[in-house]
Amino acid sequence: MSKFSRLIRFEAQGGDIYFADLGIETTAVPAKGTQMKGYVSIDELSSSKDGVEVTLERLLAPVPWDGVPIYCVGLNYKSHATEAKLTIPAAPPLWTKPAAALANPDEDIPMNKFCATTLPDYEAELVFITSRNCKDISPSEASDYILGYTAGNDLSCRLHQLPSQAGGQFFFAKAFDKFAPIGPVLVSPSVFASITNPKLIARVNGKVRQEVTLGAGGDMIFMPAEILSRMSQGTTIPAGTAVMTGTPAGVGAFMIPKTFLNNGDEIEVEVTGVGVLKNKIVFS
Amino acid sequence: MSKFSRLIRFEAQGGDIYFADLGIETTAVPAKGTQMKGYVSIDELSSSKDGVEVTLERLLAPVPWDGVPIYCVGLNYKSHATEAKLTIPAAPPLWTKPAAALANPDEDIPMNKFCATTLPDYEAELVFITSRNCKDISPSEASDYILGYTAGNDLSCRLHQLPSQAGGQFFFAKAFDKFAPIGPVLVSPSVFASITNPKLIARVNGKVRQEVTLGAGGDMIFMPAEILSRMSQGTTIPAGTAVMTGTPAGVGAFMIPKTFLNNGDEIEVEVTGVGVLKNKIVFS
Repeated sequence: MSKFSRLIRFEAQGGDIYFADLGIETTAVPAKGTQMKGYVSIDELSSSKDGVEVTLERLLAPVPWDGVPIYCVGLNYKSHATEAKLTIPAAPPLWTKPAAALANPDEDIPMNKFCATTLPDYEAELVFITSRNCKDISPSEASDYILGYTAGNDLSCRLHQLPSQAGGQFFFAKAFDKFAPIGPVLVSPSVFASITNPKLIARVNGKVRQEVTLGAGGDMIFMPAEILSRMSQGTTIPAGTAVMTGTPAGVGAFMIPKTFLNNGDEIEVEVTGVGVLKNKIVFS
Repeated sequence: MSKFSRLIRFEAQGGDIYFADLGIETTAVPAKGTQMKGYVSIDELSSSKDGVEVTLERLLAPVPWDGVPIYCVGLNYKSHATEAKLTIPAAPPLWTKPAAALANPDEDIPMNKFCATTLPDYEAELVFITSRNCKDISPSEASDYILGYTAGNDLSCRLHQLPSQAGGQFFFAKAFDKFAPIGPVLVSPSVFASITNPKLIARVNGKVRQEVTLGAGGDMIFMPAEILSRMSQGTTIPAGTAVMTGTPAGVGAFMIPKTFLNNGDEIEVEVTGVGVLKNKIVFS
């Protein structure tokens, strides 16, 4: 059984970091200034320990702790492979973002000139987070290692994805500081499974750019358990790893005309049951 | 000024971990059982603190600490780009290996069936390690952030590098546990610069497979300072990051006939002044 239904992580007034379970009844996210019961770890949520009365200052990405690199999956929606004119490979393409790429809900994404001039773009993604270390697990075992589901934005500077620029390796294009906002809420696997036809939606300045129904048999190619099993072959995947599971059609690079991110753009990534992850691009 | 000439990191009898400076006079590596003065951190080497009398049990990879992901560079030798029939891009292709990929000198590299059957191969590489966090540094500034130079083996399962298998992203093929042996000695930048025409050599079971002279104007395309500058654009590179700088011609995948690694194979990577990094492949 999961230790929570809908988990948030937040900084309280005074700077300490806490977790809280919003429960199953609400899909709203508490605002700054809300009085809450905070727990110093996820484990405390299921123990008999009582929480601490604190005041929410700002939401953080709902990961168990900072400092863990993020995994990314490419070409995991048929519609995106089609718009990119790329063949779907036998296994999910994988790479990482550094730990410093993690950004919080509502946090501004700073882009210096190097990033701002190299075709910045959004990618709305369903994200899962691992609950404990794993290695060599099967897809049927993998579900036991998923802590929950949330939303993420795999921000990317498209120029650096080109083979002529960086040999076609995607890492550098997506590794910039704060290029992986995640949140706002981590939904437990059982609660997420109970949502009928959950959707993944991206909006830029309020206009829908990506919209897809999640789940097996649809647009998504490799399901989270298959991805985690694959990642773990021969490789120890650390507890608390966030995995961005790929993006559907509708990114700016394949719009006609191509439309990249600009200073002040607000990007929303919504996953049904998770809520809306919102971040603003700020050119420096 | 560097805090050492030729640094080793080792586990002493009893299990504690120490650093020691071998000094500039020797290129030999001390054997198990050697009595040494050990220092608990690199900083202690340059302070007035005295070392601890300890007995060397086994050498460790000469990194400041464990847990830091490793950076890799692709297509950084003209000879390897030619054998792979690939065009040299404008900037060095970059990706990472997880922290759990780090392996020590003389440590066996375990390969389960998943790895052993997917075309395992070696890549001899010059490795540098960063001394402190950096971001947005120029190539001329980058030299101040390099702690030293050592040798590494970017072990790779070639099947997973194919576009049909994993979309052409190299990460997964190279991310397996213990697929990044590094060592045996970290040579300070000034000592490394004093070596005339240093060579990088790979041997498998004693036979030379790769051999190249390092340095600007030769086979190598992007020099360490250029690589580190590039890596740091928009991205915080953590102190203690090991960077594997690419491999020259002569990997098993491009031999005629193709010759992949087998159970019991011993791979040596030698860099002049650094010594020989030796690891055995063990199929499980």
